[in-house]
Amino acid sequence: MERSVDAHVGTAPLGDAELASLDAWWRAANYLSVGQIYLMGNPLLREPLLPEHIKPRLLGHWGTTPGLNFLYAHLNRAIRARDLDMIYVMGPGHGGPGPVAAAWLEGTYSHYYPDVSQDEAGMRRLFTQFSFPGGIPSHVAPETPGSIHEGGELGYALAHAYGAAFDNPDLVVAAVIGDGEAETGPLAASWHANKFADPVTDGAVLPILHLNGYKIANPTVLARIPREELMELLRGYGHTPYLVEGDDPADMHQRFAATLDRCLDEIAEIRRRAREEGETERPRWPMIVLASPKGWTGPHEVDGLQVEGTWRSHQVPFKNAREDDGHRAVLEEWLRSYRPEELFDDDGAPVPAVRDLHPAHDRRMSANPHANGGKLLQPLRMPDFRDSAVPVDAPGTGAVEATRVLGAFLREVMRENMTTFRVFAPDENNSNRLGAVLEVTDRAWMAERLPGDDSLAPDGRVMEVLSEHLCQGWLEGYLLTGRHGFFSCYEAFIHVVDSMFNQHAKWLKTTNDIPWRRPIASLNYLLTSHVWRQDHNGFSHQDPGFIDHAVNKKADVIRVYLPPDANTLLSVADHCLRTEQYVNIIVAGKQPALQYLDIDSAVEHCTKGIGIWSWASTDEGTEPDVVLGCAGDVPTMETLAAVEILRGWFPDLRIRVVNVVDLMRLQDDREHPHGLSDREFDAYFTRDKPVIFAYHGYPWLIHRLTYRRANHDNFHVRGYVEEGTTTTPFDICVMNRMDRYNLAIDVIDRVPRLHAVGSHARDRLRDMITEHRQYVRTHGEDLPEIRNWQWSPASGPATPGGDPLKEPEA
Amino acid sequence: MERSVDAHVGTAPLGDAELASLDAWWRAANYLSVGQIYLMGNPLLREPLLPEHIKPRLLGHWGTTPGLNFLYAHLNRAIRARDLDMIYVMGPGHGGPGPVAAAWLEGTYSHYYPDVSQDEAGMRRLFTQFSFPGGIPSHVAPETPGSIHEGGELGYALAHAYGAAFDNPDLVVAAVIGDGEAETGPLAASWHANKFADPVTDGAVLPILHLNGYKIANPTVLARIPREELMELLRGYGHTPYLVEGDDPADMHQRFAATLDRCLDEIAEIRRRAREEGETERPRWPMIVLASPKGWTGPHEVDGLQVEGTWRSHQVPFKNAREDDGHRAVLEEWLRSYRPEELFDDDGAPVPAVRDLHPAHDRRMSANPHANGGKLLQPLRMPDFRDSAVPVDAPGTGAVEATRVLGAFLREVMRENMTTFRVFAPDENNSNRLGAVLEVTDRAWMAERLPGDDSLAPDGRVMEVLSEHLCQGWLEGYLLTGRHGFFSCYEAFIHVVDSMFNQHAKWLKTTNDIPWRRPIASLNYLLTSHVWRQDHNGFSHQDPGFIDHAVNKKADVIRVYLPPDANTLLSVADHCLRTEQYVNIIVAGKQPALQYLDIDSAVEHCTKGIGIWSWASTDEGTEPDVVLGCAGDVPTMETLAAVEILRGWFPDLRIRVVNVVDLMRLQDDREHPHGLSDREFDAYFTRDKPVIFAYHGYPWLIHRLTYRRANHDNFHVRGYVEEGTTTTPFDICVMNRMDRYNLAIDVIDRVPRLHAVGSHARDRLRDMITEHRQYVRTHGEDLPEIRNWQWSPASGPATPGGDPLKEPEA
Repeated sequence: MERSVDAHVGTAPLGDAELASLDAWWRAANYLSVGQIYLMGNPLLREPLLPEHIKPRLLGHWGTTPGLNFLYAHLNRAIRARDLDMIYVMGPGHGGPGPVAAAWLEGTYSHYYPDVSQDEAGMRRLFTQFSFPGGIPSHVAPETPGSIHEGGELGYALAHAYGAAFDNPDLVVAAVIGDGEAETGPLAASWHANKFADPVTDGAVLPILHLNGYKIANPTVLARIPREELMELLRGYGHTPYLVEGDDPADMHQRFAATLDRCLDEIAEIRRRAREEGETERPRWPMIVLASPKGWTGPHEVDGLQVEGTWRSHQVPFKNAREDDGHRAVLEEWLRSYRPEELFDDDGAPVPAVRDLHPAHDRRMSANPHANGGKLLQPLRMPDFRDSAVPVDAPGTGAVEATRVLGAFLREVMRENMTTFRVFAPDENNSNRLGAVLEVTDRAWMAERLPGDDSLAPDGRVMEVLSEHLCQGWLEGYLLTGRHGFFSCYEAFIHVVDSMFNQHAKWLKTTNDIPWRRPIASLNYLLTSHVWRQDHNGFSHQDPGFIDHAVNKKADVIRVYLPPDANTLLSVADHCLRTEQYVNIIVAGKQPALQYLDIDSAVEHCTKGIGIWSWASTDEGTEPDVVLGCAGDVPTMETLAAVEILRGWFPDLRIRVVNVVDLMRLQDDREHPHGLSDREFDAYFTRDKPVIFAYHGYPWLIHRLTYRRANHDNFHVRGYVEEGTTTTPFDICVMNRMDRYNLAIDVIDRVPRLHAVGSHARDRLRDMITEHRQYVRTHGEDLPEIRNWQWSPASGPATPGGDPLKEPEA
Repeated sequence: MERSVDAHVGTAPLGDAELASLDAWWRAANYLSVGQIYLMGNPLLREPLLPEHIKPRLLGHWGTTPGLNFLYAHLNRAIRARDLDMIYVMGPGHGGPGPVAAAWLEGTYSHYYPDVSQDEAGMRRLFTQFSFPGGIPSHVAPETPGSIHEGGELGYALAHAYGAAFDNPDLVVAAVIGDGEAETGPLAASWHANKFADPVTDGAVLPILHLNGYKIANPTVLARIPREELMELLRGYGHTPYLVEGDDPADMHQRFAATLDRCLDEIAEIRRRAREEGETERPRWPMIVLASPKGWTGPHEVDGLQVEGTWRSHQVPFKNAREDDGHRAVLEEWLRSYRPEELFDDDGAPVPAVRDLHPAHDRRMSANPHANGGKLLQPLRMPDFRDSAVPVDAPGTGAVEATRVLGAFLREVMRENMTTFRVFAPDENNSNRLGAVLEVTDRAWMAERLPGDDSLAPDGRVMEVLSEHLCQGWLEGYLLTGRHGFFSCYEAFIHVVDSMFNQHAKWLKTTNDIPWRRPIASLNYLLTSHVWRQDHNGFSHQDPGFIDHAVNKKADVIRVYLPPDANTLLSVADHCLRTEQYVNIIVAGKQPALQYLDIDSAVEHCTKGIGIWSWASTDEGTEPDVVLGCAGDVPTMETLAAVEILRGWFPDLRIRVVNVVDLMRLQDDREHPHGLSDREFDAYFTRDKPVIFAYHGYPWLIHRLTYRRANHDNFHVRGYVEEGTTTTPFDICVMNRMDRYNLAIDVIDRVPRLHAVGSHARDRLRDMITEHRQYVRTHGEDLPEIRNWQWSPASGPATPGGDPLKEPEA
């Protein structure tokens, strides 16, 4: 079967000493891995293994671990031989014991966690803490030195690896992909990331597909297609694949070392040709397929069933080592097969023969600063966002595409940070009106280019691919290695990455509690093409629920902004780009819309995050009859239009308009650092007056954020309630009852002193809704007075719709 | 470039008449497509095109449409020639005008929508309604006859196609994949679905990769790698790919027809070999790459810029046809290039030469019942779930793995429905304790099998692949074509399919309003390996937020169940499997846990969805001092344990225990059909007594569901608040304050008459928490009295933890 594949590199590059050293290191890492899974005492096997040495609950994954350790050893050899700057992304992140063992061997672990020292006591702690309460998780986690990749959920290893490689021209990212993970969608899409990596300005990714053969309970697809078919697939992905298959350690060491050398030679040659000779054609990057038994070097058979090389090795190969003498004997034999007495000295520290494999200082993969990106993080050089501001003569006028204004600002940010900032979008950068960035850079593109192509270049800094997964994964990898980015996405489809967002938010929360992990730049989302403007995409494209999803995560790391216009969007974006350790979610429209605040007012408003808009209010600073709250661009416009109607009809009605930019201001200050105190909240929303709140998303989120407030029972929230179709911008508001007319009706229904006088007004408003709907269905667009509506100051135009206090004419 | 690919089928199978007919049909469909995008009058071009004939807002996607129409025409020819049972899944769903045009030509559209008749008036309506308020969306939608695949969000076409093909041995599913969509993760993973399709018992999927070249603003990756590399990729996916590339219609018709014939011959031969000769090796299914210009047959150049063959054709190729005479002339010329006068008769109906291409009745793809699955739906033959019930001698005792009990029931369901029911899991079926189904079937597996493999077979009915996307996509396709299924998934990672769930829920909501769409079986999720039992996976695997995500969708289609034990799980599952048009979410643990209700009580409890557990309450039917609410298995156990503590310490305290199985009972009956009336709700939870509610997920969801209730201000909810790590089952409850001790403290804090006597109790509970945490950190497991806790009736054991009313000893 093997003969037909591309290449088996046949030389045996390792001398006896080097082979012995590699193998000793591997045995040491494997020993420490098994120890972590099973042992809580007798770490050096100084005495026979007794029941009390075995953990009562055995939790962990052995199957993938020896392969990860094998690779670690070989990568170390190459790092030393070539002085490589290399990090290691482990897709099979359940092999947690492996990298922890490696970091301990390299001394990094004891450096960060001094109580897990390089001696017998430290080794005992290393074993005990693994998958133990108060200890560390069983998979690769933020606590693991050298990792930028949370293990457990699968699919993102290769995307993270490319994200790390972008703009790190000297870096090599070794990325192990488990054959289980390879079945996931995000991983399957990630293979094509090689069309977006520039051999001149980016680092290299060396994918290593680990054909372990089995998942938890099933064989893997890629292990069960002919090797030749697999090689075609990998060549189809644009790689030159090399297969190393076998189970004899000495033979595998030789063959893998030769193959790794060949791959690194090819990478060096690709770089040389691109960087020195100006070669522009997309290279065929090398990659490795390592086919080795699942649970390699583990017990071959237990209780008469094959274990090594099967799915029975996936987690803990046998469970009764504490109670069952036979199992315990298997375990002891297994542990002793690594000959720990040759690997650790009398104190329990690794012997020189093991240590000799380690690179020095920052070259150790467990200590490489790229894997603790905050160490390398430099703040963005920030241009003055005020230079991109839009003039505003009068609030509530104009027709500005907010995200287009943002695009001009992002162009300036890009111009100032041409090696540390990228923007990401699933084929939507221009559609989202951020096209201005293309004035200073291009779209990254290493595939074929044709005449007439627009702004495609290998070193482009706009990352566009039709995969939210790839955008998110690349950005995460880029941020985790100490850089900055901005991800714009259609609001509805950001849900594609809900689960990736979860993992990243959890990573941030966890790293907040790990002193040696330095803060990284925030993950910034712009959600646009939002729910209220799906004029032709309709219902399937309407979902504002990502905010709901996000605010379930820890308040420490989540920020949500709903700037109502372009200048507030600029102010918010400037702020977000300066922050660390957050996920910032900005929701803003891309369609021409009203502008409310000049840039100074915008900055002031955004700094407070919430504000009474006195220019739109009629309460003149007194206690209002009603508060109209709003958050989001469309809700703000509809709220103001409702004010205008009410103001004309009920000149004495005291209306207060409160606009919310920073959504978390609504929550209370015990729940979120941005939360208002109850006293402040009451000052905005009163303790007893009706509040009609027009919100961008699902209305119940506002209830959730405010349910503890004194005035909550008087909150009446309008928002998107899953009523949608293909229709006009105003009609979708009507369908969800968040339009000006329904808001005005809500006010009339809830302000007691309007009850007596309001019934005609209510009828009139309902008529206006009917008229609107009829017009829309005939003309295909909104009534001109809706389409062209702009805010008029209080002295403005005549009362719209006639006098509601008069009986309407029949 | 083309010479190196597998095969160009060189014959010219079409006679002149057949070629003319094919081309006429294609021109007709293209004409109707352009008309939908641009026109609101003058549909047959009986007069020169005037501004008022053009829609004021032009919205739609032209680029992909002519390719979709081309394929439709050719598939029709093949259906007629071979009497094929075929449906058509269109990944590039933005080409909405295409299938709508086809359905209109075939007469299906006018059948379902009589006002869109097959005449000039109907054609005008067909044009006007497209992407128009009150009309239809611009993409393929539930309103489109013949579709099971919502267009717009991309990535799921091939998974849906395979789902449709499973257990439909005579069906051929033609699945067009856009080269944009091909960049998404879910689509990239879907190619390997051919390892799960059995040529004997399943239908065939014919993938057609449409290399259109461009997305909204960028070229596509697969169009910009060498064709040979693409062919390697597709062979690597296990297919035999055939390339048809060009732009000359007559030539393309001949070549495509020949290629399609060859593919269908190969499919027939594969079936024959498998079905008649017993061939068991995985076949290399054929597939087609159609490389044609984007916006094929559209204007080649507008305003001096190339349009056909570029991204400028993606949506509306030029926008000013209403105002700009030049653009309007281009449009008229374009429309007339299809020679409508040859295609439609005086009334506006398609002429016989066009109609002749149509298959009869149900063979028309727009009328095929598989694409309106409810037409084929048969209820499951349901075994009696009571036969799987677990005996319960006393409530709150035992150690039952609830999902294992469910597995035995699912085995019986499977046994009775061996061609219409499948279970789906991302490599977790056994891990989720549903392994019993493997006693009557196998895992579907067409890839290589080796000795020692466990329960793998081509016709297996357990669908396991390490991709939630594929599981969801297959299941959706299976349901949409009229069958039944069950998807079990780790709770945290169901978020991988949040966006797919959105689309399906929206599909269901929309189809509820489409009379001709018949109801389909519900999509049933079992979420297990849940947040409270991530003993070693820890924080990264803890997320109960899918419920929050789901309940944002329309109440009509969402059901959420939290059965507290095995018998309630059985009752809920039985109910869900009998329902239609819902998404049912069931959350249940897989670990050994207490059993509360015998099967009769379970049925009664589940039928009500909520109930007072009088056997656990101490209020003896009177007005309680406090209500302890609970929803979910772990919260229920902790609540009962809290009752036991409180009961021992405060024998006079009147506690009412309310268990919630059907979460939507909490919402009010105006919001959800399962909602309790206010009167009923108050009867359970009182109008003024403190309620301590222990909830499985994020606590704020309970507030969201109950905020309108009279007693809401007294609701105090405990649940998961993103405090997690690797730890014991009880400790994770403590970290999130949902444990028995904290619940008891909550009660003491909130029941006024306990304030005076409760302070020592509170201190004692805090000490017990401290003792627990110390024990866990030392022993790695919970205290035996926690691990082994079972409910004792009121006359039970001595007061735990000493007398709290006494000053503790120093």
